[in-house]
Amino acid sequence: MSTDPNPSPVRLKAVAGHGQPDPSPELEQLYRGFERELLVPLWTEIGDLMPVQPKSKAAPHLWRWERLKELAAQAGRIVPVGRGGERRAIALANPSLGGKPYATPTLWAAIQYLMPGEDAPEHRHTQHAFRFVVEGEGVWTVVNGDPVRMSRGDFLPQSGWNWHAHHNAAKEPMAWIDGLDIPFAYYTESQFFEFGRESISPAERTTPERSRAERLWGHPGLRPVSKPDATPASPLLAYRWVDTDRALADQLALEEEGDAATLSPGHAAVRFTNPTSGGDVLPTIRAEMHRVRAGARTLTRREVGSSVFQVFDGSGTVTVGERRWSVARGDLFVVPSWVPFTAQAATSEHLDLFRFGDAPIFEALHAQRVRIGD
Amino acid sequence: MSTDPNPSPVRLKAVAGHGQPDPSPELEQLYRGFERELLVPLWTEIGDLMPVQPKSKAAPHLWRWERLKELAAQAGRIVPVGRGGERRAIALANPSLGGKPYATPTLWAAIQYLMPGEDAPEHRHTQHAFRFVVEGEGVWTVVNGDPVRMSRGDFLPQSGWNWHAHHNAAKEPMAWIDGLDIPFAYYTESQFFEFGRESISPAERTTPERSRAERLWGHPGLRPVSKPDATPASPLLAYRWVDTDRALADQLALEEEGDAATLSPGHAAVRFTNPTSGGDVLPTIRAEMHRVRAGARTLTRREVGSSVFQVFDGSGTVTVGERRWSVARGDLFVVPSWVPFTAQAATSEHLDLFRFGDAPIFEALHAQRVRIGD
Amino acid sequence: MSTDPNPSPVRLKAVAGHGQPDPSPELEQLYRGFERELLVPLWTEIGDLMPVQPKSKAAPHLWRWERLKELAAQAGRIVPVGRGGERRAIALANPSLGGKPYATPTLWAAIQYLMPGEDAPEHRHTQHAFRFVVEGEGVWTVVNGDPVRMSRGDFLPQSGWNWHAHHNAAKEPMAWIDGLDIPFAYYTESQFFEFGRESISPAERTTPERSRAERLWGHPGLRPVSKPDATPASPLLAYRWVDTDRALADQLALEEEGDAATLSPGHAAVRFTNPTSGGDVLPTIRAEMHRVRAGARTLTRREVGSSVFQVFDGSGTVTVGERRWSVARGDLFVVPSWVPFTAQAATSEHLDLFRFGDAPIFEALHAQRVRIGD
Amino acid sequence: MSTDPNPSPVRLKAVAGHGQPDPSPELEQLYRGFERELLVPLWTEIGDLMPVQPKSKAAPHLWRWERLKELAAQAGRIVPVGRGGERRAIALANPSLGGKPYATPTLWAAIQYLMPGEDAPEHRHTQHAFRFVVEGEGVWTVVNGDPVRMSRGDFLPQSGWNWHAHHNAAKEPMAWIDGLDIPFAYYTESQFFEFGRESISPAERTTPERSRAERLWGHPGLRPVSKPDATPASPLLAYRWVDTDRALADQLALEEEGDAATLSPGHAAVRFTNPTSGGDVLPTIRAEMHRVRAGARTLTRREVGSSVFQVFDGSGTVTVGERRWSVARGDLFVVPSWVPFTAQAATSEHLDLFRFGDAPIFEALHAQRVRIGD
Repeated sequence: MSTDPNPSPVRLKAVAGHGQPDPSPELEQLYRGFERELLVPLWTEIGDLMPVQPKSKAAPHLWRWERLKELAAQAGRIVPVGRGGERRAIALANPSLGGKPYATPTLWAAIQYLMPGEDAPEHRHTQHAFRFVVEGEGVWTVVNGDPVRMSRGDFLPQSGWNWHAHHNAAKEPMAWIDGLDIPFAYYTESQFFEFGRESISPAERTTPERSRAERLWGHPGLRPVSKPDATPASPLLAYRWVDTDRALADQLALEEEGDAATLSPGHAAVRFTNPTSGGDVLPTIRAEMHRVRAGARTLTRREVGSSVFQVFDGSGTVTVGERRWSVARGDLFVVPSWVPFTAQAATSEHLDLFRFGDAPIFEALHAQRVRIGD
Repeated sequence: MSTDPNPSPVRLKAVAGHGQPDPSPELEQLYRGFERELLVPLWTEIGDLMPVQPKSKAAPHLWRWERLKELAAQAGRIVPVGRGGERRAIALANPSLGGKPYATPTLWAAIQYLMPGEDAPEHRHTQHAFRFVVEGEGVWTVVNGDPVRMSRGDFLPQSGWNWHAHHNAAKEPMAWIDGLDIPFAYYTESQFFEFGRESISPAERTTPERSRAERLWGHPGLRPVSKPDATPASPLLAYRWVDTDRALADQLALEEEGDAATLSPGHAAVRFTNPTSGGDVLPTIRAEMHRVRAGARTLTRREVGSSVFQVFDGSGTVTVGERRWSVARGDLFVVPSWVPFTAQAATSEHLDLFRFGDAPIFEALHAQRVRIGD
Repeated sequence: MSTDPNPSPVRLKAVAGHGQPDPSPELEQLYRGFERELLVPLWTEIGDLMPVQPKSKAAPHLWRWERLKELAAQAGRIVPVGRGGERRAIALANPSLGGKPYATPTLWAAIQYLMPGEDAPEHRHTQHAFRFVVEGEGVWTVVNGDPVRMSRGDFLPQSGWNWHAHHNAAKEPMAWIDGLDIPFAYYTESQFFEFGRESISPAERTTPERSRAERLWGHPGLRPVSKPDATPASPLLAYRWVDTDRALADQLALEEEGDAATLSPGHAAVRFTNPTSGGDVLPTIRAEMHRVRAGARTLTRREVGSSVFQVFDGSGTVTVGERRWSVARGDLFVVPSWVPFTAQAATSEHLDLFRFGDAPIFEALHAQRVRIGD
Repeated sequence: MSTDPNPSPVRLKAVAGHGQPDPSPELEQLYRGFERELLVPLWTEIGDLMPVQPKSKAAPHLWRWERLKELAAQAGRIVPVGRGGERRAIALANPSLGGKPYATPTLWAAIQYLMPGEDAPEHRHTQHAFRFVVEGEGVWTVVNGDPVRMSRGDFLPQSGWNWHAHHNAAKEPMAWIDGLDIPFAYYTESQFFEFGRESISPAERTTPERSRAERLWGHPGLRPVSKPDATPASPLLAYRWVDTDRALADQLALEEEGDAATLSPGHAAVRFTNPTSGGDVLPTIRAEMHRVRAGARTLTRREVGSSVFQVFDGSGTVTVGERRWSVARGDLFVVPSWVPFTAQAATSEHLDLFRFGDAPIFEALHAQRVRIGD
């Protein structure tokens, strides 16, 4: 209005309702006073702000891998990678989060794509990240000078404030998934970012089978005595598929032998952990690989906090709240906070699901709740 | 539009700029594909999402206590307290947060007001809360059946999932400040709420000088052996002004005697802690009382995360980023993340500042940063 | 023997018995071989080394305060205090520990005695210590330059590697109890010691009511923000009787009002804690004050690890394993590991028991066990 | 003496000396009083009890593997294994510890020997244990029903209060090393013991290549989600030589490439850790494998607490305080508390040293000190 050069962002309307004061001229006058003073009463907001249980603003949603790859390949042809844009990464935007590049209120999930011979320039940021490779190979991520191979099935944590760049040493493009806590850091306003060198050195372009991090930290139950301290995030820069696969197969075999190794019949799962603490691999992100035996179904699970899943292998059906999808390799979907989730493997093949979520935030703050069962 | 029955919330525009791909028909086509598939590229968002350092969406802002009290008193006359609305609480709405009742992105701060003889009904919620009393007395908060007196200068933590109600046993209205982590819990979708009894019992209407919690936990350095475990939040339900005041006076006296007791010359501060752990009083909220000696000035401080201050006593000048205010008893102001803050006491009297903030979240997640100095 | 210039300390004898090999010449020859090579078989030792439950080498024993004071006063007349001997401290020697100055296998307990005007010179050591004052006043302990008053009922922790001296500023001698982990440190060979200044400064001879440590740390639930870190031992150098007494009285009053505040009916107890962590006041020593209501009796308790008790006030009967004593002010007794203990107050007055023990060692190593009940 | 039916174990003698009171009849009378009352003054004991730094009662000592094996084999022929004696284990008795079966004041080290087809019966105890295999194979340890293979180079932790038995499934006898905290538990009187079944089941006599524990926990950086809690000791029951060897080789290779992977030039070391916490494999015992490159020498190291070493491979020279020995495969030696230690590999081959020690005790109690350098 022309008479209000500096209107308040607060807008209050007296309405009738349970717990609401009766509308009246005095109430309207009070609400105008609140608006002028930038105040909002609890009684008009409590239903939304303090629900009986989490009602996620995010929606369950599925993205098909084939469509993501096509668009990423198209971007590979016309969008260069370089300083400023930093990465050819294309994020999942939950349909209920206003077009923002958030898979869930706290998590970022993107497909990143690198053409043969391309580099993504060095930078660092306090946001915690990881890569997960659903297919392909040929890219190395250089972390503080340590080149780390990326191949199908590998999980590569990238904890905050470490320098990193990527280079594609192969003849083919490569796509993979990036997961980060960008929305959480954005919302809580806790992020720092720094640009690094424009180009990595020739020595960093080597393509070793194992990174230095793996040679130091990749031995089961062993730690280098020269690196004694516990660190908030994992110093191990790659968790290889050969290990993950074997661990899952071992759990299912143990179950068949009568041992309590699985989460429920036919449902094996491993968590990627920080070997210096035994805790989650990153302070804000939990990452796991799940395997559902052919024909089996997981227990229904609700938990505080959200997750993103990617089908790594096999096929089946997943149910997220009211939604149900048949899924296949590469498909990504989100499970919002406190929405029930279950997965059913096809009868002919097992279903491998990579999952990451924000559970460490809630565990650190003693706010975690889980409910299992239908 | 009639031709788009289910429009995507994603809207992308090709623009020229550092790190941006050159606008072209192919790029527009790519962006339409992103929109259809609910995808957002990093390169258009990175400047906003991943700044070099936190750029808070919240603004520094000051609310005058006199105006808050007037409006609260007006609400006292026309807005009843009862089930559904739950509390006569009126929240500070940061002018840059879209009219939402958030003092900062993570913190709720409200004035609550209770008329003589009034009750606020029992409920519980996982959000962590506290009361702080800048003036007045006469209300008791009943926590799990334990009546806790509220008087000027007292700090009363109310950790999540404990039943609580209020009743005003005095002849006068009473106003105080509620602080909660409502915005954080709302954003991270981790909240639970339960209604309690409509009315507390006669035994709960007693008005003891000390609560049972204080009789168990309010003795310096002593814990009841019958309650051995560490709990995530403090079991002590009231921190009395007589203790806080003495602790601050002791620090300034020690400084005068030549001991390193203060944060900087003339700047004493105590933190309210959980006696079972020595850590913060609540898992998500830090609360402190600061005293600046007459004529003294605190060091400038920037930190990750936001705070709300209330002037408890005295007067002076506070500087928050580009804003500066003269402040007096009861005034409330916010310091957004990474915005520099300093306080200067008047030359004639000390300045007592109550402060609460979200630092425990960042410390738990290893994301805390502090920079001290101008 | 002249034929054995370097005899082995190992001596083995073949004996018949359950689990023992049959005596034979070959066995004797084998045992001679073991002796030569400094070897001892498990099978001859296992009954002693690995009992079904702890069988303490220490005996329950009681020392009468009147006798201790008489001897300490006698020592006050003829044994000077000074460098080399360091302290006029006289330790309880458990009758089953070979005449060593150990109250229990891990704990040292001594009466210390200082004549009017006397000083005990400054030193520091890694052994953790405390003072407890059953009667009298007039001595100040100077810890890192901070004079700390010692009066009846006060508990004064003295954590390892802090400089400390004592001076008697009164006209009367004063006696008190020292507790340390000397035997534990001796056995585990982990101790360091350093001599300090020959004499403390005049400023250190002042006799303030409250120490600087108390002024910084003695406020319930409050910590100085200028001292943020958790420390392994308490920075609070005195726990005053007025607080301890009130906490115990509060527990018994709460019990009368129907609240679960005591360990069992009529048995109140507080633990002295480190305000920076909520844990035990010293890394190796737990200290508590217990009050048994007139006519009440504690539950029988067995626990791994040993304790020393001193009667602070009142009278009653204590039972330690097979031993039972009527006790009065100042009497000291030991409860060895896993020996059942119970205390019964006289019908006419409550019984206040100061207790210290080695439980933190076992809790830190996950070896603690407690059994409650008769 | 006939005049002293119940002589005191305390014996005091007045002697002249620094810090000692002058001998006199009064002093003698005082000392007689002390003896009668079971008291010992600090001033006569302080030099021994509170040394400037640890003066270990244990001596550096070396046991030759060939001699141990001969005696163990001799025992194998004439000492049966069974209930009561429990194990054919023969312990190192430090020559300065009075013939007791203690390698150091806190540590037990023994050679255990099992004939073909023999069983050692099931039991459990709170003492923490491990096996280390310097040569041979064929024995399986059955832990809570899980058969665990034992082969050269393997380290097998056996944390307290787990049922365990051994059976030799091979045609040859087998010897290995047991390490336990028996002396520490004995001294601190914290031990429990329980006999198990007389005989293990046929299913437990199987000889799987990998134990169930390894199949659940033996994958680098991965934990089974079905077993979420941190446990005080490692759930991984075998650390295989193939992993340990590779980790050491990796460190030396990284060092050659210019990375900081070793403790000092030519000195690689790995620590066996609890994958649920990243900490030591057992609450009271640290275990490590060290490799010194041919011709290299470790830095001289002193630390609080004691260690036992066994040469796993190669040869060289070790120096422990004033003692120096040439060592070869299987030789065992002890390094007492605060005694300097260094190892030098032969010029022709590297030196692999298995080491276990009591450092976790001191770290848990904040009493650890290390000094590195000559």
